[in-house]
Amino acid sequence: MEQRVSLITLGVRDLARARAFYEGLGWTTRAEPEDDVAFFQAGGMVFALWDRAELAADSGVEDSGGWGGVTLAYNVSSSGEVDAVIDEARNAGATIGREPAKTFWGGYSGVFVDPEGHPWEIAHNPHWTVGPDGSTRL
Amino acid sequence: MEQRVSLITLGVRDLARARAFYEGLGWTTRAEPEDDVAFFQAGGMVFALWDRAELAADSGVEDSGGWGGVTLAYNVSSSGEVDAVIDEARNAGATIGREPAKTFWGGYSGVFVDPEGHPWEIAHNPHWTVGPDGSTRL
Repeated sequence: MEQRVSLITLGVRDLARARAFYEGLGWTTRAEPEDDVAFFQAGGMVFALWDRAELAADSGVEDSGGWGGVTLAYNVSSSGEVDAVIDEARNAGATIGREPAKTFWGGYSGVFVDPEGHPWEIAHNPHWTVGPDGSTRL
Repeated sequence: MEQRVSLITLGVRDLARARAFYEGLGWTTRAEPEDDVAFFQAGGMVFALWDRAELAADSGVEDSGGWGGVTLAYNVSSSGEVDAVIDEARNAGATIGREPAKTFWGGYSGVFVDPEGHPWEIAHNPHWTVGPDGSTRL
């Protein structure tokens, strides 16, 4: 198994609301309004929104109903960009899990939680490199 | 916010066991054995294993204790590769959430669940393109 991820699927209870949230952040999908899944090309990977009950059944797991141990992150090149993305998410309807501040690991980050309860850390990590194509390197 | 993901962190209760599982799949990390987080470069993204309670606190969310609506996927270029990766994961200690079979969307896939309960779909989707660098395109 190569060291890579092809697709992240977030299970959602209200697909229209979730899709509108990510579109509110400026993301675009070629899904039709009536489609039951929304795929977004995210760099060299795919990000998807799909019905949470169907995703649980398809994955062969039981749904515990809340957060289950996965957090996504979006890295940027400055503290100012962290503040800007957190504000953008707040304006798009996210709740803020942690307001932006310096972190114990020497960076600066905040967390927003999307309308379906999925958290995203927005981080500036001075030890990592964010390339012009958005790739993130250790 | 650009349309990309920098980092996926999986919360784990037993970091040594989780790390050994991914290393058993052939993945490599530059983390030291005593480090409290393991980062893996995964294409243009980073994949991390970190203590689940710390991740919940850091993300500003409550842990429901089980699966919480996120499934990862790894796409390959043939059905035979799906079978091979599922077998590799089984041998490394995964449980199988769904044995490989044809899917309702015209592909072929199976699901393994890692020792911490995080599912991975291993899929051949003939409608998508997996590039030589492992990138997956709609």
